[in-house]
Amino acid sequence: MKSREHVAIIGLGLIGGSLARDLAAAGAVVSAFDNDAAQLDAAIAAGVVTHALDAWLAGVAGASTIVIAVPVDAATDVLRRIAPHAGRATLITDVGSTKSRIVDEAVTLGLADRFVGSHPMAGDHRSGWEASRRALFTGARVYLCATQGASPALVERAELLWRGVNARPCLVDAEHHDRKLAWSSHLPHVVSTTLALALARAGITREELGPGGRDVTRLAGSSPDMWTAIARENATAIDAALAAVEHEIAGFRDALARADATALHQKFTAGRGWFVSAEAV
Amino acid sequence: MKSREHVAIIGLGLIGGSLARDLAAAGAVVSAFDNDAAQLDAAIAAGVVTHALDAWLAGVAGASTIVIAVPVDAATDVLRRIAPHAGRATLITDVGSTKSRIVDEAVTLGLADRFVGSHPMAGDHRSGWEASRRALFTGARVYLCATQGASPALVERAELLWRGVNARPCLVDAEHHDRKLAWSSHLPHVVSTTLALALARAGITREELGPGGRDVTRLAGSSPDMWTAIARENATAIDAALAAVEHEIAGFRDALARADATALHQKFTAGRGWFVSAEAV
Repeated sequence: MKSREHVAIIGLGLIGGSLARDLAAAGAVVSAFDNDAAQLDAAIAAGVVTHALDAWLAGVAGASTIVIAVPVDAATDVLRRIAPHAGRATLITDVGSTKSRIVDEAVTLGLADRFVGSHPMAGDHRSGWEASRRALFTGARVYLCATQGASPALVERAELLWRGVNARPCLVDAEHHDRKLAWSSHLPHVVSTTLALALARAGITREELGPGGRDVTRLAGSSPDMWTAIARENATAIDAALAAVEHEIAGFRDALARADATALHQKFTAGRGWFVSAEAV
Repeated sequence: MKSREHVAIIGLGLIGGSLARDLAAAGAVVSAFDNDAAQLDAAIAAGVVTHALDAWLAGVAGASTIVIAVPVDAATDVLRRIAPHAGRATLITDVGSTKSRIVDEAVTLGLADRFVGSHPMAGDHRSGWEASRRALFTGARVYLCATQGASPALVERAELLWRGVNARPCLVDAEHHDRKLAWSSHLPHVVSTTLALALARAGITREELGPGGRDVTRLAGSSPDMWTAIARENATAIDAALAAVEHEIAGFRDALARADATALHQKFTAGRGWFVSAEAV
């Protein structure tokens, strides 16, 4: 990244805050807005953010890159607010876990030549500026979803932005992304939450779990606002993925009821085979 | 623990091997048997095990403590093999994830005055001697399940064994243990496996998951032998726990189908509430 590039970040949560930290450390001038004035103040006090933007977001006019880092149900609204102010040569991106709607909205707003959606596969169950940190994106895959007919040069700028924080960008179609992420991200989140709900109802505390069980339920600690928005936006695909887990649980219960050691062993072996093949990558 | 105490460990997997490492480091003489001669050789080469036992296990006669650290479906057989050789003053324990059957078997074999079952809530998806390590039990809860009428002195010896490796023993009834662990340990394992099976079927690799999804599916990498045995032994209780997760998934799918943002938010909030209450402990 060029030194003293000006990046505007809307939303200083875990993702926006961590990106701000890395970009500032790399020499960028970071301006930012957050609904929570305390988070914005903390980011300024930390020397990460140099200019506070107001809620109108007119201050993004001077930015060469604008990053929208708010929950997915608020992102299109932010995109509409910045549309009149973003310069012609600005790269606009976001970091949301669903991509179809915001890419469509960018086209509708006449930002097709400036918008490339991003979804970094990085995160934590913790949220907010206080959870943000340097190097969150190191080694992380970042899905890029461009508008139809976006210029290679624009896509390359988005790639450079993420490579600059040591992430691994890869270009995918937005609808394909959303269908795939329903499985690879949203499903594990919802399964972790439903497991937590079942344990809560049974009166089992997380403190009673071993290290493995604590890992399985860690994502239940994620932000309800963020995940309600994602669940609504990708409801159909998430529902299909949940149906597949229901099917596997039913198959497991069937094997238990039949005391079928061979079937149970096959299931554990297939699960482990899937696990191990990734370890070998 | 007294210096140069003699401990015999049957099974040098993750749990048996890690316990052997800590006890040897604390000054105990450790003799051991493992079905896999290579594992036993490795433990001797590492200076952890000083005497190899043969498969008849007659060599446990000199041990003041015997630890059975094999899968739960093999543990009762090992108990039968050591019964004729174990001295009257020996503490016999195991490390299995189910406790009712082995405690009953100890009574049947006339070992009620010497047997206290153990279940350390420590572990890893990896298994075998090569996965074993020092300090695996530091801070871990260890459930102790004594036979009816076991002497307080015997229970205290089992407590001292585990306190010696910095674990936190607590005495519970074996049947209560098995019902509770169906939820707190076996359920997260099976849910992790069924999620892995659904992802495998959908063609999603573990490498495509983010850090959260990788955590949720980590337990799918566990030993199929060990978990098939646990699933069979605690089938009824695990089935009931799986039914509860099915119920929660159905409820989530219902909220998705109705696009009910309030219900979805309540579910994520309740899951997070359960998670946070443990963090505060």
